[in-house]
Amino acid sequence: MTDSPRDRPLRVAMIGHGFMGAAHSQGWRVAPRFFELALTPRMQVVAGRDEAAVERAAAKWGWAESSGDWREVIERDDIDVVDIVTTGDSHAEIAVAALEAGKHVLCEKPLANTVAEAEVMAAAATAAAERGVRSMVGFTYRRAPAATFARDLIGAGRIGEIRQVRAAYRQDWLRDESGPMTWRLEKDRAGSGALGDIGAHAIDLAEYMTGLRLDGVSGTIDTIVTERPLLGEKVGLSGTASNELGRVTVDDIAVFTGRFAVESGFRPIGTFEATRFATGRKNALTIEISGSRGAIAFDLERLNELEIFDANDPELEQGFRRVLVTEPGHPYLAPWWPAGHMLGYEHGFSHQVVDFVSAISEGVAPTPSFSDGLHLQRVLDAVERSSAADARWTPVG
Amino acid sequence: MTDSPRDRPLRVAMIGHGFMGAAHSQGWRVAPRFFELALTPRMQVVAGRDEAAVERAAAKWGWAESSGDWREVIERDDIDVVDIVTTGDSHAEIAVAALEAGKHVLCEKPLANTVAEAEVMAAAATAAAERGVRSMVGFTYRRAPAATFARDLIGAGRIGEIRQVRAAYRQDWLRDESGPMTWRLEKDRAGSGALGDIGAHAIDLAEYMTGLRLDGVSGTIDTIVTERPLLGEKVGLSGTASNELGRVTVDDIAVFTGRFAVESGFRPIGTFEATRFATGRKNALTIEISGSRGAIAFDLERLNELEIFDANDPELEQGFRRVLVTEPGHPYLAPWWPAGHMLGYEHGFSHQVVDFVSAISEGVAPTPSFSDGLHLQRVLDAVERSSAADARWTPVG
Amino acid sequence: MTDSPRDRPLRVAMIGHGFMGAAHSQGWRVAPRFFELALTPRMQVVAGRDEAAVERAAAKWGWAESSGDWREVIERDDIDVVDIVTTGDSHAEIAVAALEAGKHVLCEKPLANTVAEAEVMAAAATAAAERGVRSMVGFTYRRAPAATFARDLIGAGRIGEIRQVRAAYRQDWLRDESGPMTWRLEKDRAGSGALGDIGAHAIDLAEYMTGLRLDGVSGTIDTIVTERPLLGEKVGLSGTASNELGRVTVDDIAVFTGRFAVESGFRPIGTFEATRFATGRKNALTIEISGSRGAIAFDLERLNELEIFDANDPELEQGFRRVLVTEPGHPYLAPWWPAGHMLGYEHGFSHQVVDFVSAISEGVAPTPSFSDGLHLQRVLDAVERSSAADARWTPVG
Amino acid sequence: MTDSPRDRPLRVAMIGHGFMGAAHSQGWRVAPRFFELALTPRMQVVAGRDEAAVERAAAKWGWAESSGDWREVIERDDIDVVDIVTTGDSHAEIAVAALEAGKHVLCEKPLANTVAEAEVMAAAATAAAERGVRSMVGFTYRRAPAATFARDLIGAGRIGEIRQVRAAYRQDWLRDESGPMTWRLEKDRAGSGALGDIGAHAIDLAEYMTGLRLDGVSGTIDTIVTERPLLGEKVGLSGTASNELGRVTVDDIAVFTGRFAVESGFRPIGTFEATRFATGRKNALTIEISGSRGAIAFDLERLNELEIFDANDPELEQGFRRVLVTEPGHPYLAPWWPAGHMLGYEHGFSHQVVDFVSAISEGVAPTPSFSDGLHLQRVLDAVERSSAADARWTPVG
Repeated sequence: MTDSPRDRPLRVAMIGHGFMGAAHSQGWRVAPRFFELALTPRMQVVAGRDEAAVERAAAKWGWAESSGDWREVIERDDIDVVDIVTTGDSHAEIAVAALEAGKHVLCEKPLANTVAEAEVMAAAATAAAERGVRSMVGFTYRRAPAATFARDLIGAGRIGEIRQVRAAYRQDWLRDESGPMTWRLEKDRAGSGALGDIGAHAIDLAEYMTGLRLDGVSGTIDTIVTERPLLGEKVGLSGTASNELGRVTVDDIAVFTGRFAVESGFRPIGTFEATRFATGRKNALTIEISGSRGAIAFDLERLNELEIFDANDPELEQGFRRVLVTEPGHPYLAPWWPAGHMLGYEHGFSHQVVDFVSAISEGVAPTPSFSDGLHLQRVLDAVERSSAADARWTPVG
Repeated sequence: MTDSPRDRPLRVAMIGHGFMGAAHSQGWRVAPRFFELALTPRMQVVAGRDEAAVERAAAKWGWAESSGDWREVIERDDIDVVDIVTTGDSHAEIAVAALEAGKHVLCEKPLANTVAEAEVMAAAATAAAERGVRSMVGFTYRRAPAATFARDLIGAGRIGEIRQVRAAYRQDWLRDESGPMTWRLEKDRAGSGALGDIGAHAIDLAEYMTGLRLDGVSGTIDTIVTERPLLGEKVGLSGTASNELGRVTVDDIAVFTGRFAVESGFRPIGTFEATRFATGRKNALTIEISGSRGAIAFDLERLNELEIFDANDPELEQGFRRVLVTEPGHPYLAPWWPAGHMLGYEHGFSHQVVDFVSAISEGVAPTPSFSDGLHLQRVLDAVERSSAADARWTPVG
Repeated sequence: MTDSPRDRPLRVAMIGHGFMGAAHSQGWRVAPRFFELALTPRMQVVAGRDEAAVERAAAKWGWAESSGDWREVIERDDIDVVDIVTTGDSHAEIAVAALEAGKHVLCEKPLANTVAEAEVMAAAATAAAERGVRSMVGFTYRRAPAATFARDLIGAGRIGEIRQVRAAYRQDWLRDESGPMTWRLEKDRAGSGALGDIGAHAIDLAEYMTGLRLDGVSGTIDTIVTERPLLGEKVGLSGTASNELGRVTVDDIAVFTGRFAVESGFRPIGTFEATRFATGRKNALTIEISGSRGAIAFDLERLNELEIFDANDPELEQGFRRVLVTEPGHPYLAPWWPAGHMLGYEHGFSHQVVDFVSAISEGVAPTPSFSDGLHLQRVLDAVERSSAADARWTPVG
Repeated sequence: MTDSPRDRPLRVAMIGHGFMGAAHSQGWRVAPRFFELALTPRMQVVAGRDEAAVERAAAKWGWAESSGDWREVIERDDIDVVDIVTTGDSHAEIAVAALEAGKHVLCEKPLANTVAEAEVMAAAATAAAERGVRSMVGFTYRRAPAATFARDLIGAGRIGEIRQVRAAYRQDWLRDESGPMTWRLEKDRAGSGALGDIGAHAIDLAEYMTGLRLDGVSGTIDTIVTERPLLGEKVGLSGTASNELGRVTVDDIAVFTGRFAVESGFRPIGTFEATRFATGRKNALTIEISGSRGAIAFDLERLNELEIFDANDPELEQGFRRVLVTEPGHPYLAPWWPAGHMLGYEHGFSHQVVDFVSAISEGVAPTPSFSDGLHLQRVLDAVERSSAADARWTPVG
């Protein structure tokens, strides 16, 4: 996009450059090509600890500069946005510093590794918002058009009152007990296991689509395989194994029941599952929401589809409709391809850029906010506390 | 089937004649046509309280005689088998009397409405077994060929060690809050709601397929719609509504997590759901079992199919296989139609007759036994107690 | 069903007793249990060439008597209905004789092996109808409730004007080229191959659902595997192979395009496929019908489901609905089980009995008639002639 | 991607800038970020007739310059590649000129609007190849990983000998007969209708996956709706209608049967359908290939999945496997996201860039070649000739 005189640039710094850095970079690069944005993102600088690695990342993902010092980057006058894609344990420090430096902050989920950190971040975000500084957490699955459309339908009352939610995020990459240790299985580094990593997505999607918030949970978390071969050497998500065993210190399965707060009447029941042992399920973030007048079902493995059941259909013709959410009238779809042409995983990152940039240019608060992220952290915490208390019902926050 | 000299008849009395009576009658009538049985069932007499109604039932469903007095029937010398299809609250009395009278007993599920009743029945069954009198509980979904085949595969180790089970039975016939009261919503008559009626099937299927038993649960049961219009007049499962409201005294939703007992290692986690509010789901008894080397998934709405995932398949070609369980080599299939021809709901009742008659003729104990039925009753009871105790983990039995 | 004084019996003789005999027997036995019939079928006598075999069949399938001479049976005064389930080459002789003897005739599809035979049969049926004698061809897949419901919807204009039909019947039992010869692969005995055996079902379903008739075709038939090991001994549908090769003299694949006659406007295009080499497809009779306002899709492997697309749904919510055709309001369903309980292959034979008996008792002409059967035979013939004429478009009849 | 000293640039000019221009631009922009390419594409210049429009396109899609004169562009020394995305009637002139000017040419499908044009182009490509100038036709659906993987499996013999192919491309955007005329319905401008536009994809996919070529066809093409309201004004693919009627001069449905050439044995039969009236089908490019040892099925509406049937699986466990083609070991997948993360429509354009650039850098001939494109044009032509000759079998070329 050649800058035209009317272009108002939005200069972005990205802190971190792993798998999420690649996805965010793709969002920043692609979004402005397809969507009309009031501000034009510039991929200014990427920061990381390892200077050589970050330089390679800058070249590969198209950032104009690289830096080995994120603090310096945050202080730069020519930076408007700080995009945080580091591991969870560093989110709080970077985000708070960036907000205090007056930068808009996009922070990859989960907001933090602990409730305490998340509280600090939410407070900082609230304070910054008063100065017109925006912040957002990166739950991109909300921005799969079918997920957004589900939210729209439910918000418009198409399925009536919500009664039940079933949400699960199922993967199977730990199925093989001889598979090696990775940092994702160490509590110190990963913060959480299946619950925080993928369960968080299921919770966010459930709350987003229903517009409701969990206020109590009864849960069980556990570790199915507790020891695994130590990696000889880190090689991506898997690696090659050695003969020594390491201890898995995070949960690899979490199941819980939750209640959603409502003003009156039946408090909807949600069931949640996050597992890395669902043999044969690769990335199955599924959700089904049952209402008094209809239902919707979504499966991330078929992310261009939404199943809709409408209890107002003629009685003998009722059934779940498989809707291809690819029409120009569907959320986010108009600027992309003709109807029937599929989007993929990474398009959510473009949609995230669109929403974040729009909020900044329009001076409104983007969602999900850091407060939303804090709430989610509290749900995760309540699940852990419930599990430690014999699965007893535990209030959120 | 014209009797031949070699025919050894098995004279059957059925107590009760509602929906389940129709299904059992169909089993008794059809099974001997397709399967070679060592004993030939004779549909001798059907008993019920309302003499006119039971006479009509006899004519309709093909029983030679009818009776208004089940006690008299049980005492008859020309009866070998008593098949109980009454409501749950009368199972114990009839079954115990029949066993004591030396009749083989087939008792429709659930075994009883309470643990106490079930204990009496199981004891009576054990005592009777010593005298060669057989007893069995009627969980017919086990005998859908795909379900039986799943059990066979798992028993043979095809999916390795079990890690997780997800079982649900979802219906939506209570979705409409203006739908009327029926006896199934009254605790006194129905004994239980969604949990005992359909949740029992999910539990049985999970235990049957895995060969494991739940030994602890953490559950929540509730009633989503607590008041409904009283029926002007009973008309089948639904009826026509009046202006007065009646109180729903059974659960209409039950969700729980369970642990399966194993000798050593990780205790598999099961999640269970029974609901009558799953908008759009009509008879969705679904189960997915994840093992260390594979997985299976079954859905009663597609009862001729079994999905199988085999982690030993070539890595890039792994996926859930949709297997039509209609080959002559599949369980129960050989005497029916050529491969690819579908069976329906009622075939399970024929298979039940086959297994029950075989056990009698071979002098072995059929399954599920009354003890199995008692165990299941204890699981239901533990779920209710856990729900009353803030969802705390509660041991079974 | 104990006869009551008001019972008017309908005494049935069945000629033939193979796989179809089993299915028809099941229909005669079961239909009167579930449906209120004005006439009560009596399974009087089964006839066949091999006296010992037919005696066994009578015992197994519940016919009161057996006979080695079908001509004698047809002449009996105590027979009202003749049900023909022999191989196609004998249909004409038996049916004409039975009609002339004043018996109502149900003749399994295909009506005959040749157009000439079918013409004689249709003429005999027309003549008999004037004397109140009824006749019907046995296309039972029409009577799968989902298929009947599709016809009802289309007939009511729910999908607008028909534009396209895609019908296929795919099996794979000949996939393995080392599989042995059977009589079904010999032209002399089977009359036809894939085209007449299974293609006939696809054609009938297409014409039945649309209410239209094919009036021209362009087709190609062929034999993929032309030689197969001779059976050492006949053992069911497959058998064990020998070292000698036999010649396959029927088609094992047939594909054709057809045009449906309409009074004005676009003549809808149908594509048809019948194959025994569709690896992995066991009994996949599938049909999709596209109309100006909607579409329906049906698959016999999921015979309790119908997919319906309604172009009048809100634009962004359009999609194929998976409808479980198991509600009491669906065709044939009310007397069976509660909603959500599946029917199987054989239920169509009960529905056939219901419709045939109703037509007899009401004195109306049942469908499909022998004339319909003749038309279908002419379609098959036109496909064969087109194939022989370089696939040129060939008028039907 | 910051240029490093070792970067060898590949300077690209794109001629045309419609929907396909957007897709190709995305390919050129994104491919180098994820894949290691020996040559680094530079999006140098985009050319088109309307100077203002092309300038806007350059800004929007990220081309450094714009030009109103494609001839001038082709002559530039600083251009290595000419990427043609204009309408089919201009392909021949541009491509031949570009090849003669020594530019590598990527030409969007179909290669041309007529066989004659395609012959000239293929000859020019052959001549250019001798000078090391490369050319390729843009059938991107081949480069959906699941499609490529299907080709790999079949090429490796995994499904044995091919017997049948069923390929269809079904859309429904012409369903509503009151929908307006567009240039795509005018023979003069579009060259062809459903057959050339989408049928071409079905043919290419069938030939690509099987590695076989059609050598004869029997086909029927037609126009279901022959008159449509004239557009008041062109507005994208649809537009707003006026009161006057225009004549549809292209086919909107094409069905044909084809035979694939093989050295010996049975010539596999393919059935093909291209339609814009398949109510409810949006972009359903489906293909099923039946072999002697297995089968594969692919549906573009679920482009990340491949269904595989393996006749070598244990007999009772055979079924179509739903394989998520998203593992790092699957074609093209390694540089993208972790397993289970979906790709979309546009990724094929990146894969096309990868393959084209690799061929150029390695000095080998890319596929599909212009000769392949010519062959495909001959198939389309044979279908049209067969249709005009009463559907008679017609040799290809």
